[in-house]
Formats: sequence, structure tokens, C-alpha cells
Amino acid sequence: MAASLPPVITVFERSPDRGKGLARDMRVRWALEEAGQPYEVQLVSFDAMKQPAHRARHPFGQIPTYEENGLTLFESGAIVFHLANTRTGLLPDDPHARARAVTWMFAALNTVEPPILDLQTVKFQERDQPWYAQRLPMVEDRIRGRLGELADRLGDAEWLDGAFSAGDLLMVSVLLRLRASGLLDESPNLAAYVARGEGRPAYNRAFDAQLALFNSRSSGGVGR
Amino acid sequence: MAASLPPVITVFERSPDRGKGLARDMRVRWALEEAGQPYEVQLVSFDAMKQPAHRARHPFGQIPTYEENGLTLFESGAIVFHLANTRTGLLPDDPHARARAVTWMFAALNTVEPPILDLQTVKFQERDQPWYAQRLPMVEDRIRGRLGELADRLGDAEWLDGAFSAGDLLMVSVLLRLRASGLLDESPNLAAYVARGEGRPAYNRAFDAQLALFNSRSSGGVGR
Repeated sequence: MAASLPPVITVFERSPDRGKGLARDMRVRWALEEAGQPYEVQLVSFDAMKQPAHRARHPFGQIPTYEENGLTLFESGAIVFHLANTRTGLLPDDPHARARAVTWMFAALNTVEPPILDLQTVKFQERDQPWYAQRLPMVEDRIRGRLGELADRLGDAEWLDGAFSAGDLLMVSVLLRLRASGLLDESPNLAAYVARGEGRPAYNRAFDAQLALFNSRSSGGVGR
Repeated sequence: MAASLPPVITVFERSPDRGKGLARDMRVRWALEEAGQPYEVQLVSFDAMKQPAHRARHPFGQIPTYEENGLTLFESGAIVFHLANTRTGLLPDDPHARARAVTWMFAALNTVEPPILDLQTVKFQERDQPWYAQRLPMVEDRIRGRLGELADRLGDAEWLDGAFSAGDLLMVSVLLRLRASGLLDESPNLAAYVARGEGRPAYNRAFDAQLALFNSRSSGGVGR
């Protein structure tokens, strides 16, 4: 009986990006949809996220978390990996191809995302600082360096290494954070790559679900 | 025959940290030693790292890379995962415990390391900027926040989740970057945790190997 219960993920009760799909539950929702895995959503407020009950699930007091059959995971990359590793459709079967796809998961999160997070830090936490105007272009140039290298590797391929994988899912998710900055459009092949990701039916189901939740909460509805 | 060749990793021809063990090949060397896997080292100069031959292995022009039986990987986290996944001693066999250990791998690299990398960026790339003195404490406070949460979760446990795993290997490696800052010593249980990692025989074999390489290169020796 317990084995048939769908996994439960936690998401923002009210996403700070107002449903633009940039909260990290989106990565997990997308992976769940790619795997055809139904799931339940549990809402967590900003206050509740920092309380012991949630910190027992997520030591850093963030979302998403993932609970299933007595297993509790946090960290969106790890949850996507768990889904990819236990369901089909997100990692190739061939061991070498699989290892390479996992490499792109780590590259997305540990090489490409850090300078992008730094840009968000600058924009949201340092906008009023006297150094903002001078520091912003430095951070943008660091991102440009990484994007140029990624664009060179991608070339005119559809995905980073053969068929679409969890590596692409995370890379597209990371790059999407750049859309508002205009930096992504400086690399046309990367912009097209991200658009291909956004065009996947699973992406759209996940996006629509998080947007519907935001809208229902904003209009005073019950959500869920 | 090919199957018996040891894997080859690339490392800095001359490590910028002068053998302090902070270059990212150290994480891979440590994992190789934990797994009891012999390996070969190939030296790459700063210039060669940015050339097409090396970029074919590593699209971002960095070290380490990993080559074995026609498989080429980059990104230290991915290489550590590959070793953990194909050898024994770095991930538990129980599926739930294994998924949790992988979660700590991602947490180390995607949640704990980014603010630590930001500190290195400040110290090495922004030291001469007019905002240095004002921005440094902001970055340090972000790190303190993460360390406090990690220290709360670790408590007085020996490792993050049961036995030592690749999650601990990466977390200790990430935290070691903080030693010079003094921030690590503000959390005695984290400092002790890192010291336990450094006390492992496999860590010491890996550390000694990279230091011996640096010393041999510095004194004009042939290295290797």
C-alpha cells in the first residue's frame, strides 16, 4: 500500500518569482513529468521553511524536498538524479553515455550556475550599494565566459550529448535564470537550446502546474 | 587489455595553490584512493588547458578530467560520482542511504560551495576594488549562514549520514577552502568534521601525491 503512494514535493506557498518557473521545484516538477511520475505538492510558507519541522527535511531551510516511501531527499539536483536513476527517460542506459549525462548535471550546477547565482545576488542584494554599477559588468563578463564555452561545445547539436537527458534538464533550467538579463540571447545556439527545452511537453505541464498554483494562491483560492 | 589500463586524470602542471590540496584534482585523487583504484596523472599547463585538444576533454578548459576505456569525463563532482558508482567504499549499498549520500554530494557543490567560491572571487579578483572592505563581510556572512545550518544538521555525528561517503568527501573538500579565512573554526563541530576527513589514510595518500608533484615541479624535477 505505502509503495503505491505518489511522492510528495514541497514548494513555495507563494513563489517569489510569481510563477515564472524559476523556483527550484520547477526542475523537480519537470523531471517528474518527463518520467511520467504523478506527484503531490505540499505548500510551505517562508516562515515554516525555517522552522525545525521543515529543517528536518531540508537542513538549509529551502524548497524543494522529496518524500517517498520513507525516503526524504532535498537539493533539486539530487532529487532530479534520484528520479533519473529510478525511472526511465532521463538518463541513457549505456553506462558511458549515462556517466557523461551525469557529468552535465554536475556541470550545470557547479560550473554554470554559480556565476549566474552571483548575478542574482548582485541584482537583488547589492542593487543599492555604491559599487553596483561597477561590479555588475564584471559578474556579467564571468557569465559570458562560461556561456561562450558552453555554446562552443553545444555547436549545432540538439542536446549536450546525444538524446535529451537530466543533464539537459538541469542546464536548461540554469540558463533560464538568465533570460531577463539578455545574456542568453548573445549566444543564439544556447537560446535555441533553451527554447527546445521549454518546448517539451513535460516542461509545459510542469510550468503550467506551478503557474496555476501561484495564480490560485494570489487570487485567494485554496491552491494545490 | 584495454580494460586493465588505469584511469588517467589531468592535473595542473603547477598548481596555483602550491600543493595545499585545494585544486579540484584533489577531490578525485581522494576518491580514487578511497576506492583503492590506481591511476595515472597527466600534467596540463595553464596555456594547454585553454587549447582545443584539452577542451575536447573539458569544454570549460579546466582540470581535472578522467579518461578510462574510451570514457571521458570532466567536472570533479561527476568524476567522484562515477568512481563511487562503479567502485566500492564511497556510497552505501542500501538504495535509500545511497540516495541520501548523493544528496549530500549535490548539497556540497550547489548549496555550500557557491558562497565559498564567491569569497575566493572577492579575495582574488576584487581585492583592489574600492568596495572590497565593505563587500567582504557581506560575503562572509552568507557563508556563516550556510555553515550554521550545516553545523546544526551535523550535530555531534561523525559523518553527515551514517558511514563516510562521497557526500562527506565533497563536503569536507568544499569546507577545506575556508581554512585560511578562519570561518571554519567558528563552528567547532564542522572544524572537527573536516579534521576527521583529513585524517583518513586515503586523504593523506592523495594529499601527499599532489604535494610531491608540486614540489618536484618547483625544484625543476621531472615530476610525475
